[in-house]
Amino acid sequence: MSAAFDLVIRGGTVATASDTFLADVGIRDGRIVQIGETLPAGAEEIDARGRFVLPGGIDSHVHLSQPSGEGIVMADDFESGTRSALFGGNTTVLPFCLQEKGQSLREALTAYHALAEGNCYTDHSFHMIISDPTASVLGQELPALVADGYTSFKVFMTYEGLRLNDAQILETMDVARRTGALVMVHCENEDAIRYLIGRHEADGDVAPRAHATTRPIVVEREATHRALSLAEVVDVPVVIVHVSNGPAIDEIRAARARGRKVIGETCPQYLMLTADDLEGMDWEGAKFVCSPPPRDAASQEDCWRGLETGVFDIFSSDHCPFRYDDPAGKLNPKGKMSFRHIPNGIPGVETRLPILFSEGVMKGRIDLSRFVALTATNHAKVYGLERKGRVAVGMDADIAIWDPEARRTIRHADLHDGADYSPYEGIEIQGWPTTVVLGGKVMVQDGELTGTKGDGRYRARALPKV
Amino acid sequence: MSAAFDLVIRGGTVATASDTFLADVGIRDGRIVQIGETLPAGAEEIDARGRFVLPGGIDSHVHLSQPSGEGIVMADDFESGTRSALFGGNTTVLPFCLQEKGQSLREALTAYHALAEGNCYTDHSFHMIISDPTASVLGQELPALVADGYTSFKVFMTYEGLRLNDAQILETMDVARRTGALVMVHCENEDAIRYLIGRHEADGDVAPRAHATTRPIVVEREATHRALSLAEVVDVPVVIVHVSNGPAIDEIRAARARGRKVIGETCPQYLMLTADDLEGMDWEGAKFVCSPPPRDAASQEDCWRGLETGVFDIFSSDHCPFRYDDPAGKLNPKGKMSFRHIPNGIPGVETRLPILFSEGVMKGRIDLSRFVALTATNHAKVYGLERKGRVAVGMDADIAIWDPEARRTIRHADLHDGADYSPYEGIEIQGWPTTVVLGGKVMVQDGELTGTKGDGRYRARALPKV
Amino acid sequence: MSAAFDLVIRGGTVATASDTFLADVGIRDGRIVQIGETLPAGAEEIDARGRFVLPGGIDSHVHLSQPSGEGIVMADDFESGTRSALFGGNTTVLPFCLQEKGQSLREALTAYHALAEGNCYTDHSFHMIISDPTASVLGQELPALVADGYTSFKVFMTYEGLRLNDAQILETMDVARRTGALVMVHCENEDAIRYLIGRHEADGDVAPRAHATTRPIVVEREATHRALSLAEVVDVPVVIVHVSNGPAIDEIRAARARGRKVIGETCPQYLMLTADDLEGMDWEGAKFVCSPPPRDAASQEDCWRGLETGVFDIFSSDHCPFRYDDPAGKLNPKGKMSFRHIPNGIPGVETRLPILFSEGVMKGRIDLSRFVALTATNHAKVYGLERKGRVAVGMDADIAIWDPEARRTIRHADLHDGADYSPYEGIEIQGWPTTVVLGGKVMVQDGELTGTKGDGRYRARALPKV
Amino acid sequence: MSAAFDLVIRGGTVATASDTFLADVGIRDGRIVQIGETLPAGAEEIDARGRFVLPGGIDSHVHLSQPSGEGIVMADDFESGTRSALFGGNTTVLPFCLQEKGQSLREALTAYHALAEGNCYTDHSFHMIISDPTASVLGQELPALVADGYTSFKVFMTYEGLRLNDAQILETMDVARRTGALVMVHCENEDAIRYLIGRHEADGDVAPRAHATTRPIVVEREATHRALSLAEVVDVPVVIVHVSNGPAIDEIRAARARGRKVIGETCPQYLMLTADDLEGMDWEGAKFVCSPPPRDAASQEDCWRGLETGVFDIFSSDHCPFRYDDPAGKLNPKGKMSFRHIPNGIPGVETRLPILFSEGVMKGRIDLSRFVALTATNHAKVYGLERKGRVAVGMDADIAIWDPEARRTIRHADLHDGADYSPYEGIEIQGWPTTVVLGGKVMVQDGELTGTKGDGRYRARALPKV
Repeated sequence: MSAAFDLVIRGGTVATASDTFLADVGIRDGRIVQIGETLPAGAEEIDARGRFVLPGGIDSHVHLSQPSGEGIVMADDFESGTRSALFGGNTTVLPFCLQEKGQSLREALTAYHALAEGNCYTDHSFHMIISDPTASVLGQELPALVADGYTSFKVFMTYEGLRLNDAQILETMDVARRTGALVMVHCENEDAIRYLIGRHEADGDVAPRAHATTRPIVVEREATHRALSLAEVVDVPVVIVHVSNGPAIDEIRAARARGRKVIGETCPQYLMLTADDLEGMDWEGAKFVCSPPPRDAASQEDCWRGLETGVFDIFSSDHCPFRYDDPAGKLNPKGKMSFRHIPNGIPGVETRLPILFSEGVMKGRIDLSRFVALTATNHAKVYGLERKGRVAVGMDADIAIWDPEARRTIRHADLHDGADYSPYEGIEIQGWPTTVVLGGKVMVQDGELTGTKGDGRYRARALPKV
Repeated sequence: MSAAFDLVIRGGTVATASDTFLADVGIRDGRIVQIGETLPAGAEEIDARGRFVLPGGIDSHVHLSQPSGEGIVMADDFESGTRSALFGGNTTVLPFCLQEKGQSLREALTAYHALAEGNCYTDHSFHMIISDPTASVLGQELPALVADGYTSFKVFMTYEGLRLNDAQILETMDVARRTGALVMVHCENEDAIRYLIGRHEADGDVAPRAHATTRPIVVEREATHRALSLAEVVDVPVVIVHVSNGPAIDEIRAARARGRKVIGETCPQYLMLTADDLEGMDWEGAKFVCSPPPRDAASQEDCWRGLETGVFDIFSSDHCPFRYDDPAGKLNPKGKMSFRHIPNGIPGVETRLPILFSEGVMKGRIDLSRFVALTATNHAKVYGLERKGRVAVGMDADIAIWDPEARRTIRHADLHDGADYSPYEGIEIQGWPTTVVLGGKVMVQDGELTGTKGDGRYRARALPKV
Repeated sequence: MSAAFDLVIRGGTVATASDTFLADVGIRDGRIVQIGETLPAGAEEIDARGRFVLPGGIDSHVHLSQPSGEGIVMADDFESGTRSALFGGNTTVLPFCLQEKGQSLREALTAYHALAEGNCYTDHSFHMIISDPTASVLGQELPALVADGYTSFKVFMTYEGLRLNDAQILETMDVARRTGALVMVHCENEDAIRYLIGRHEADGDVAPRAHATTRPIVVEREATHRALSLAEVVDVPVVIVHVSNGPAIDEIRAARARGRKVIGETCPQYLMLTADDLEGMDWEGAKFVCSPPPRDAASQEDCWRGLETGVFDIFSSDHCPFRYDDPAGKLNPKGKMSFRHIPNGIPGVETRLPILFSEGVMKGRIDLSRFVALTATNHAKVYGLERKGRVAVGMDADIAIWDPEARRTIRHADLHDGADYSPYEGIEIQGWPTTVVLGGKVMVQDGELTGTKGDGRYRARALPKV
Repeated sequence: MSAAFDLVIRGGTVATASDTFLADVGIRDGRIVQIGETLPAGAEEIDARGRFVLPGGIDSHVHLSQPSGEGIVMADDFESGTRSALFGGNTTVLPFCLQEKGQSLREALTAYHALAEGNCYTDHSFHMIISDPTASVLGQELPALVADGYTSFKVFMTYEGLRLNDAQILETMDVARRTGALVMVHCENEDAIRYLIGRHEADGDVAPRAHATTRPIVVEREATHRALSLAEVVDVPVVIVHVSNGPAIDEIRAARARGRKVIGETCPQYLMLTADDLEGMDWEGAKFVCSPPPRDAASQEDCWRGLETGVFDIFSSDHCPFRYDDPAGKLNPKGKMSFRHIPNGIPGVETRLPILFSEGVMKGRIDLSRFVALTATNHAKVYGLERKGRVAVGMDADIAIWDPEARRTIRHADLHDGADYSPYEGIEIQGWPTTVVLGGKVMVQDGELTGTKGDGRYRARALPKV
């Protein structure tokens, strides 16, 4: 006689985005089918007593295998990136699919699917990056992709070659209005940055620290207000990604008070790093170059409050890894000479959850339910992953089992990404996901890889619930 | 052979404060013990297909059998009040226990327990109203009560005889600081109201509408800012009850942006009524006299936004019923002559949930999870009802089964309270709780009472989780 | 023996931007040389008893003889425009000199000077409109013009062909940073307007009222925040012209609270008109088409408060006249078909001061000193007219003598501009400038023209004092 | 033949609150009668070439000879206080007349007049301090005093024995509503301060620094919001005195944005001192004990911005002097033991103007006209001194002649008050009033006293212009 369940996770403390309770979790055919006291035996069993049984993390903001121009190579492909994500307690990632200028969206997607197919340790889906919003892209291609389950796309207000002007952003948002999809916006004013770069270069000020002083808070605040206003003109919800500071947070608060739907996101770098980190000797500041740049202690405090009080709905990594000591990375030939040529981005997909767990939950700033909401459930709601991000009946059995007593020091040597450093090296962590289950399959058991490359699959998405 | 469960609610759409899913709910010994697909049979079964299976409502702001002075009698005692609550989908109510001047808290509690004992159709607990914060009350009595499970208390900034001055509020909040209990504040500036009453009376302006114009928004905004500031001085969280308008909401937002923990509450009257309702002919405006008074359409919109965007954590009735056409009610001899003598308060414990369901969920302003959070789960968290307010394993089996297709017009004749009118008479409602389960016992089945007076029990409470 | 003074204005109530007092004003050689009690006789004398002796108005925002494209002709040239200004109590106007694309600034100036030379009834100077900020324009031409006394220039964020992008605005502001000149910004987001025009046209909504709904408040608020932010990036003061509503006002307040220097301007149309005026039958709404559009009663109130509380430093007309019933005016062939082709702008140089005097001073909203500041003194300070805008020793004898008892109804038939209507037709006014003195010469006496075309001269300007 | 003028001040740079110009000032019979170029000779002449000719300072917030309880003696009586004021460039001071509990206002005034009569070096008037607002005080006495020219009165929200409750403040404001007089409010929440004192004392924290930590910003912000709200309820303008920090400033800004008339005041201590000054060794911090306490560098910056941007209308000293090393002063027997018994207040009437001139005008933060407005003209307008505070025809000839090149270091030894220290000891100053004229009489000439005790007279006041 067959067991009632394929897998039972027994005796753990289960947390959802609202509730925490002791229960067994019964899994069959890759889904959670029962949650209760003293479930019957499963073919496989995991003893979770003293552990937290949480939905596997969803990291809705990662960059993998994305071309970065001029001989720069991203440090993670889908294999290393999703492996690293998995070890960090994630079961789904949402990387970006970058439309190159002149390229059709479908063409771009085909290429990214080819890179991902068979190589992933986590489930995944794609946000499109719209870099060339031609009439046919917006009129035909993008609506068709939304219908196919690519229900979110991102626009940039910065980066030469990527940034759209307001007219283009409005037209792209109008696709969201017509289809129900969701627009994500990277908010920094490119023209203002370039103006400041010009003044810095005229002064010969080209060390990594200048990355922060050419992207001051006003540059992010302005773009945030503008993105929120454009969304107000079109009358669509909008995601403001990687918010780094109090004035930008105030813009989000004000937009909501005007009745606008805004989804706010912040990232570990805005809780743990500051612009001072960009000042390391020997150009080591390059390791911390990302956009928006880390700010200061007051901004960190503002971002924590944003997490505590509901300004932020989602907490992502913005994992965008480059090797440091590498001619294809941070210290490329031009990057050694000027901050302008240091590729923007830092690794973080594996450390995102432990940092928030340790600094947030264990230090009492947020409770376990808020952690679950910020790292999994809200991502699923916002991005239409209807069967993800929840430990609830009927959901995919994507689960991370956390040991709240585990103590580790972040060492890049222990991580699984393709970079050669971690910006969080040396930080003491309490709490780590020791076992990770994807669709009912144990992928990591007590810190050892038990899953296989290719176990992670592509997932089409429904329209957002916002 | 005995059934696996005492009761199975089968095939409904279960909603928690974060998730919604199809599942059976298995109940044993008064608690939810299993949630899953295709549960084994229960001794009793309820077919919930096409229905919503929600946690029973918790109404954390009701007044029952509370003395109101000068021959005024509250229209509901514990029997009629909890019966009405039950029919409105609630399984727990938190009435107030009013300390009379000079009275010990324990004495007051004994009296209220005596009134409630054996008479209730829902579970219940008490918030103390501190009207006489003597040294012994604050030094010994109140801490002892907190230890006994009376973990919240309320102070008034208005009503002669009840209102505390700032020094008293600070000392009362200090008890919260020392014990971990929670302070609720009714925010209206009594002195300002009395000043305005003086001016109105000098002008002979004494009709019910003057109740609103002597309690304008500035009076509530000032007191709200003050209550938040006093809590900031003491460094404790605080509940701002029955918020009625945008400027008061802005004060809550601002306090949170300063890093303060604030729990915000609003009520149906601030969504559905306006000050114009106080203008009815033949003194009918008296039916709508409550404090703070209903405002205007813009304030209603602000309150809706507060519900949608997280300003408000809890939605309560502030049920405080008086009969209208009754010498012991609204039209008491003095109350017929001047708004000052119309007792403050309106009934609403039975209509709270249907109004929010119909106007909020069915009209798309909030989703089902937010409804559950606002009406049950958050009340349980805020007020330490650890086994209430959630459809989750281990929780008390307090459940309301809603028919989202049920259409009713609110008629006081159909309600179960002790008043002689409803302020919401004539409002069309879609969605009503047809079956209500308390601790595993079916109390209302398809709209018929099946429970017994006394089924509802007193529940001591843990410290708040805020 | 010659008289002590060329002209004495005797016995009037003199007002400065701070003080009001009874005094005689003695004028010699075109300048005010004495203010005192019982001055000796002048060669000429004016009896000003019972009158107000104010500095002649400075209207720092007028458009004269400016090309408007496609066969549209501005209704006023320098002759009619300055004559109208003079009759409205003004002694100095600051029209714009529009650089056409590809044109050198000097070339444009030469042309405007040629139009003005010998034709003016008031003194005047020019703000440059920068429409083509090439490297040589910003690097050489503009700094040279600043040195020559053209110490302010304007940029547009709206109007195809005129609007600059953020990079261009930043570079133009950088000229201000390097030279001490002042940048004025017309704040409306052109892309957002065009997006909304597209939606309106798709709906066939092309009547004049659509001019307002395609330029909603959000469009102005966004651009205002952006202009203030760009000025913050460059670190220069900035003039926000013709502010029309509360949210834009809030942006100015917030910028000042951040420590920014901002000069705010509003205009009569934002006090007296609303978007409803755009709805007149028979396309009459075209008479009120200007940008930003008039808003609503609440916005009017916000603008009044801005005048009362110091948000606004200057009150200008934005006189930009087009004839209504004229194929070269509002009802040009295309303009009759769609709001898009109705030229933007309304006349108002003659009615600006009477409207503010009557509605502001006589109705008690502002005092006489604030009137003087808003209409003359602050314009002189902001735009470097060192000898203008003040009744003080040493200043040019530019004086308007007001009769506070004069009652008039605004009738276009009584005005002196080149348009064929006034948007303020029918408004009752109390107070009118009956006598106007320019550089010691009586130009208008008791409502009759006594001056000569060409009496008004060009005035180079110093750097702003802000 | 007699000279045309009694006194001519020749060739100076005259500044008013709006204008600055070179002119001679002709004085006759104690008033300014002529301002012009090359005035005829006066009986007396002062050469003011290279100097600034400003209205004599009005210090509308000083305490002289005010009883302070328990053997504490204020360091200045009217003689020393006005002498000190005079040397600091002032020609009018507005001390307070304190009503003792149970005392009639008239009685209190009689006593203060007796102290002042014949002893003053400057003109003066009194603000009443209402400490006992009985029905007869508010119903008869105060209105009668307003009619007699005592057109402003102050209420305290702090200090046991002085503080009024909200009901009393409302009734006092209502007198302002009925009479047109003006209410000044000291905004700190006494109950909150006492609560914090209790916690500090329980911790044995009684050094002078505790004066600051028991009066944190929240205590002032709360009371400011409350005072503004009470004035809103009554619908009267209000003066918020001695504002010390950004959040209180924000409350003033917000009230104005709501349409309220608010006059804001700050003082030198909030620009120059911080709470760290309260930490001096050997209880020296006592020298800086005043209320509200000095804050921090950010608050100083906020107060400067408030001066620059118009939040503050008036800049006063809040001169309230106590000797330091004196048993009747700061180091009284109890004051040596606990901050609670250190009398509140610091001297500053002589240094107010030089500090603002040096730090504000000479360092370019404000211009000369703003200095005049903040230190003289606005005080005259706000407090109804119709012939004071202006260098204009018809005004009292109260003039201070400043040498902008004079450099001094503040040394208490050089000052003229009755205290034994200056909180500003050692600060370098550029600019000092070298000659001071009161009603046409030269009182200080080139730093030497030429006037006589008793030259200063009492001045009844008109209703405020606000």
